[in-house]
Amino acid sequence: MSSSTSPTGGPWRLHPDRALPADPTTRDLARSIYSSTRDLPIVSMHGHVDAAMLNADQPFGDPAEVFVVPDHYLVRMIVSQGVPHDSLGVPRRDGGPVEADPRAIWRTFCEHWHLYRGTPTRFWLEHVFVEVFGVTERPSADSADRLYDAITERLATPEFRPLALVDSLGMEILATTDPATATLADHGALAERGWGERIVPTFRPDALLHLDAPTWAADVALLAERADLAVDSYDGYLRALEARRRAFLAAGARATDHGHLAADTTPLSAEDAGRIFAAALRGEVTTAEATAFSGHMLFEMARMSTEDGLTMQLHPGVLRNHDPQVLTQRGPDVGYDIPVSTEFSRSLRPLLEAFGHHPDLRFIVFTVDETIYSRELAPLAGVYPAMKLGAPWWFLDTPDGMRRFREMVTDTAGFYNTTGFVDDTRAFFSIPARHDLARRVDAGFLARLVAEHRLDLDEAAETAVDLAYRLPQQAYPALR
Amino acid sequence: MSSSTSPTGGPWRLHPDRALPADPTTRDLARSIYSSTRDLPIVSMHGHVDAAMLNADQPFGDPAEVFVVPDHYLVRMIVSQGVPHDSLGVPRRDGGPVEADPRAIWRTFCEHWHLYRGTPTRFWLEHVFVEVFGVTERPSADSADRLYDAITERLATPEFRPLALVDSLGMEILATTDPATATLADHGALAERGWGERIVPTFRPDALLHLDAPTWAADVALLAERADLAVDSYDGYLRALEARRRAFLAAGARATDHGHLAADTTPLSAEDAGRIFAAALRGEVTTAEATAFSGHMLFEMARMSTEDGLTMQLHPGVLRNHDPQVLTQRGPDVGYDIPVSTEFSRSLRPLLEAFGHHPDLRFIVFTVDETIYSRELAPLAGVYPAMKLGAPWWFLDTPDGMRRFREMVTDTAGFYNTTGFVDDTRAFFSIPARHDLARRVDAGFLARLVAEHRLDLDEAAETAVDLAYRLPQQAYPALR
Amino acid sequence: MSSSTSPTGGPWRLHPDRALPADPTTRDLARSIYSSTRDLPIVSMHGHVDAAMLNADQPFGDPAEVFVVPDHYLVRMIVSQGVPHDSLGVPRRDGGPVEADPRAIWRTFCEHWHLYRGTPTRFWLEHVFVEVFGVTERPSADSADRLYDAITERLATPEFRPLALVDSLGMEILATTDPATATLADHGALAERGWGERIVPTFRPDALLHLDAPTWAADVALLAERADLAVDSYDGYLRALEARRRAFLAAGARATDHGHLAADTTPLSAEDAGRIFAAALRGEVTTAEATAFSGHMLFEMARMSTEDGLTMQLHPGVLRNHDPQVLTQRGPDVGYDIPVSTEFSRSLRPLLEAFGHHPDLRFIVFTVDETIYSRELAPLAGVYPAMKLGAPWWFLDTPDGMRRFREMVTDTAGFYNTTGFVDDTRAFFSIPARHDLARRVDAGFLARLVAEHRLDLDEAAETAVDLAYRLPQQAYPALR
Repeated sequence: MSSSTSPTGGPWRLHPDRALPADPTTRDLARSIYSSTRDLPIVSMHGHVDAAMLNADQPFGDPAEVFVVPDHYLVRMIVSQGVPHDSLGVPRRDGGPVEADPRAIWRTFCEHWHLYRGTPTRFWLEHVFVEVFGVTERPSADSADRLYDAITERLATPEFRPLALVDSLGMEILATTDPATATLADHGALAERGWGERIVPTFRPDALLHLDAPTWAADVALLAERADLAVDSYDGYLRALEARRRAFLAAGARATDHGHLAADTTPLSAEDAGRIFAAALRGEVTTAEATAFSGHMLFEMARMSTEDGLTMQLHPGVLRNHDPQVLTQRGPDVGYDIPVSTEFSRSLRPLLEAFGHHPDLRFIVFTVDETIYSRELAPLAGVYPAMKLGAPWWFLDTPDGMRRFREMVTDTAGFYNTTGFVDDTRAFFSIPARHDLARRVDAGFLARLVAEHRLDLDEAAETAVDLAYRLPQQAYPALR
Repeated sequence: MSSSTSPTGGPWRLHPDRALPADPTTRDLARSIYSSTRDLPIVSMHGHVDAAMLNADQPFGDPAEVFVVPDHYLVRMIVSQGVPHDSLGVPRRDGGPVEADPRAIWRTFCEHWHLYRGTPTRFWLEHVFVEVFGVTERPSADSADRLYDAITERLATPEFRPLALVDSLGMEILATTDPATATLADHGALAERGWGERIVPTFRPDALLHLDAPTWAADVALLAERADLAVDSYDGYLRALEARRRAFLAAGARATDHGHLAADTTPLSAEDAGRIFAAALRGEVTTAEATAFSGHMLFEMARMSTEDGLTMQLHPGVLRNHDPQVLTQRGPDVGYDIPVSTEFSRSLRPLLEAFGHHPDLRFIVFTVDETIYSRELAPLAGVYPAMKLGAPWWFLDTPDGMRRFREMVTDTAGFYNTTGFVDDTRAFFSIPARHDLARRVDAGFLARLVAEHRLDLDEAAETAVDLAYRLPQQAYPALR
Repeated sequence: MSSSTSPTGGPWRLHPDRALPADPTTRDLARSIYSSTRDLPIVSMHGHVDAAMLNADQPFGDPAEVFVVPDHYLVRMIVSQGVPHDSLGVPRRDGGPVEADPRAIWRTFCEHWHLYRGTPTRFWLEHVFVEVFGVTERPSADSADRLYDAITERLATPEFRPLALVDSLGMEILATTDPATATLADHGALAERGWGERIVPTFRPDALLHLDAPTWAADVALLAERADLAVDSYDGYLRALEARRRAFLAAGARATDHGHLAADTTPLSAEDAGRIFAAALRGEVTTAEATAFSGHMLFEMARMSTEDGLTMQLHPGVLRNHDPQVLTQRGPDVGYDIPVSTEFSRSLRPLLEAFGHHPDLRFIVFTVDETIYSRELAPLAGVYPAMKLGAPWWFLDTPDGMRRFREMVTDTAGFYNTTGFVDDTRAFFSIPARHDLARRVDAGFLARLVAEHRLDLDEAAETAVDLAYRLPQQAYPALR
């Protein structure tokens, strides 16, 4: 299909104007706006980097282990062209053999570089390879081995240890995401070494809120152990969750994170909640009861956030593990999570009715369903003080996706009912690239407003800084 | 967050090319097209300006009373940042105290000017302040008092009385929206003074069509009184509605206006309609029956329009009063109406099957759900002669919203199955600004077609005039 | 409303840059990219041109018969403005009189030329009139008769016989769509004359898969006859369908084509399928059973495709014959097919779970609901190897529609999980115009990526060729 990209001579360089608008008038303005944000520190409040990895602070592995195998964006694209997971070294749950030679995996990746044309993955990888690793050749079958060696060499240097990179890549603060039952030992150890203000946990109780999850009973047992409280009733369960939130707060957490299939937030009566919880303890909960309970618990989580101040993050609308065989063979998070149509106007109503004007609630909503930007999310965030719109999420965290978000949201919600840029990745190296791309795209959007005389340039530059830096800080304030 | 906008020197002026495309080729074309429509008279057929205010023709109040307190666009944006309604002087239903100093309210508004960056509200306000009031400073904490004084001074002049402004602002015709039970006395008095052809009522029977509305019984009693007919049966009810439509026609009305939650138009049998109506009279109607009846009545309203010629306007899909506490405290129309996903293809089918080819029906559909532009509305309006698409409505009445509407609708419905621009506002002063913005955006869209050699310039200019002036006239013809 | 377009002097010519972006930087790049694809052969794999017409190879009829009467795009637009079908010569099922003078029909069409402003229909017609017929005047009331004569004269020449045009218009391969019960005699005759590799049938079994269709019993009887197999049981039905697929394969078919209202692919147990089929044979099937069976049969069709290799095409989401009176009077395909909201993530799951990784399945999905591009289709096609996204379909086969498709799909699915351009029309003459438009729009999209430094120019040119030529070939490979 495609020959690999052939450099047109000279080493691979990234154009300073990449992802800025093409029209010269607008581009000049965008450049000027982007210059205000390019070098700002990174506030990364929704990350999924592993806390243990940061605490261990050991050298990263080989290029395949760092860039290919764990990145579901990369893997899914190559798999979509018929390359089996095995060839990419994605582990099998049964321990069966998969490609074990990192150089072969890396080569497979480089041979498929053309698949990423026009994708944000390509933008991020280019940024990482050139800006962070100093690579001078495009990936291709021909260059694969040389790139492998060049990256491997860098990864072995002390400057490429995780914590050194947190510093050198400009990450002012980096949040991890941690199950509600986490010991937080890694964060504790990091805090002892002075990283407590910069690497903070996030409270993610999903596993405990879905009563019909196969692991629920085990998770509840673990919750009791971690909280050192009996969880033999709904009341005990609430108290244990509150205790864990306090432990996260003490460890520096600023937020909770909730991934539900639907956005429903309808509260149950205490009686109904108690009855359903008891049924779950007996292993007799129905799917309908579990679903109702999970919506109820979003309401309860908002209530707790009004009390302890943790920013509440909700990102609904993803049908996880679309292919059950892949789940069985490879586990979750290998690229088979597919968005579904999601409703917010009615679903969030109970939560917003109860807490939407509460001065101590910050409730941030993400979506992978862009059809509800102008119809539901902007009208809601444009009136309820507690609600803010997170950045375009996951499949929408793209140049055109971010532009559409601003175009469909700003009319009704303005800029100041959004959180500014929030990344969402387990790919550590891509974090600066993602922030850089968002700053470029927001500069382009603001530049168009200026070029169309809908905004003044000084306002645009100020707004750009707000989106890149101040708004994320305000959305996730320090609570200790 | 934001310092106020600082003028970069010299008085505040609006750029003549504002809201035109930035690309120089396209902008030149857009300028040329816009010059054909800039000075056309305003045809405002879907307004919500108060007829009593027009008839009284008294000086407007202070700047807060004119611009801030009654404008839910302005209020909701400031409320969304945590400023209480009280500070903005929004009255409480219980008569409790709210900010009563208009200067303080105005100051709060000016201090929050940065919130409107990138919003159509900002565009409209700039137009009004600079073009209509001759203001020379941007709103800010610093300029607030000076702006207040300047605007107040203007408002006191005879040129700023309502009817003088209808003239000087170029409003050729201005429709109000009036409940089906209105006496139409203000319109009568205006007609006696020679304004009968320029200020016309619109028949809005919503309150009478929703059998489960708390005020329904009282409204039906009022209907009987106004129509001077017994409304003790479904037949009497239909006859009274028809009589009121005739009274509106006699007063110059050109249209009816229907705001329903869903677009359902399924007719009931006369027996079922009669049975449900009788139950409503006894106070025993169910929600399901009332919902079915309201869909049935849309069908009946279309039938009546085929008989009396009133243009029928439908705008479904808004969940009113999302926060019931705000409704209790402040009443409706303070910013808490939120769109929901709406279906049209199946819902409008009964109406279109019966009347979609009727030569005497003009049926105009508005939406706040832009996902159905290309999927449902353009295909329907692109084949049924009776159906036309209204302008992008409410949250979509924005530069980018109007552009998306044209981009998603024109392919299948063309320009001539739309009504051209129709404003929808109770903010009297914003009417010319809204028409001006629409003319600019349509000029920009047409200019792109010309720049891409998909349309000739003479065609574009003619189409622009049609959209700004001729199509609205044709969509709402005079019936007397 | 509109005077006809007046040429500004000189003969009507099409601008070489039409439908390319207006910004000069981007246009230069787009020109360069388009020059790589402009003259490539046409691969037309989803057409609805009549095989009998091709085999007969007789001169086409008059301009009205060729361009107006059978083209539902043209007819619906004029009908939408209140012109009755009769005036356009659309035949009545009862044989009642309609306009029979082709010159009068043509004149009506030309008088309404302004309705097509901004539509793809205009773009296609301009291309055909100017590029294929050498017309030098724009359609208008004034020019109608001259255009009629000029086109009629051309149509009478040997160069304008169907098979000569297949050659001269650059159609390397042209697929027709044929009911599963077709004799394929026309294809046989074409093959004998050496056209067997260039004009191929497509297997369309819709009529047989919807057990509650009024013609189902007759179609099943015909199926038995064509397959020469008893179809008195579900097993016999499956065997007969498989036999017909083999017959189509032998006749050169490369694909199947499925138009269902919903995208459901849930399989039934063999017992349930057999029971429902038996009920249908007795004329006792319920709507719910028939709907479930049709979803089951999509699953079965995918299974058969894994066995015989026919590419499977699905295009769901159209409510056919929206106005039942028009159906009664004029039959199907006269412009009253209206899209409805469609769900894919859950609906396709059974099919993809079973066959989404099957190395021998090519499963192509089309939609007229663009809201699911980024939410469902791109995420699905971006991971399941068997699934590819067809081109924007029907109401979305437009300059802006194709641009939006690329903008919303490429981020997640890239270019190489799409099929490249696939036309879908019964309007023979429009086929080259549609491919030309797609090549221009894709060149414009790719040019923007280059202008924004997100892609290199050599990559863009290569990708353009893939989209125009190589990907359609790969999506519909030859199977004989």
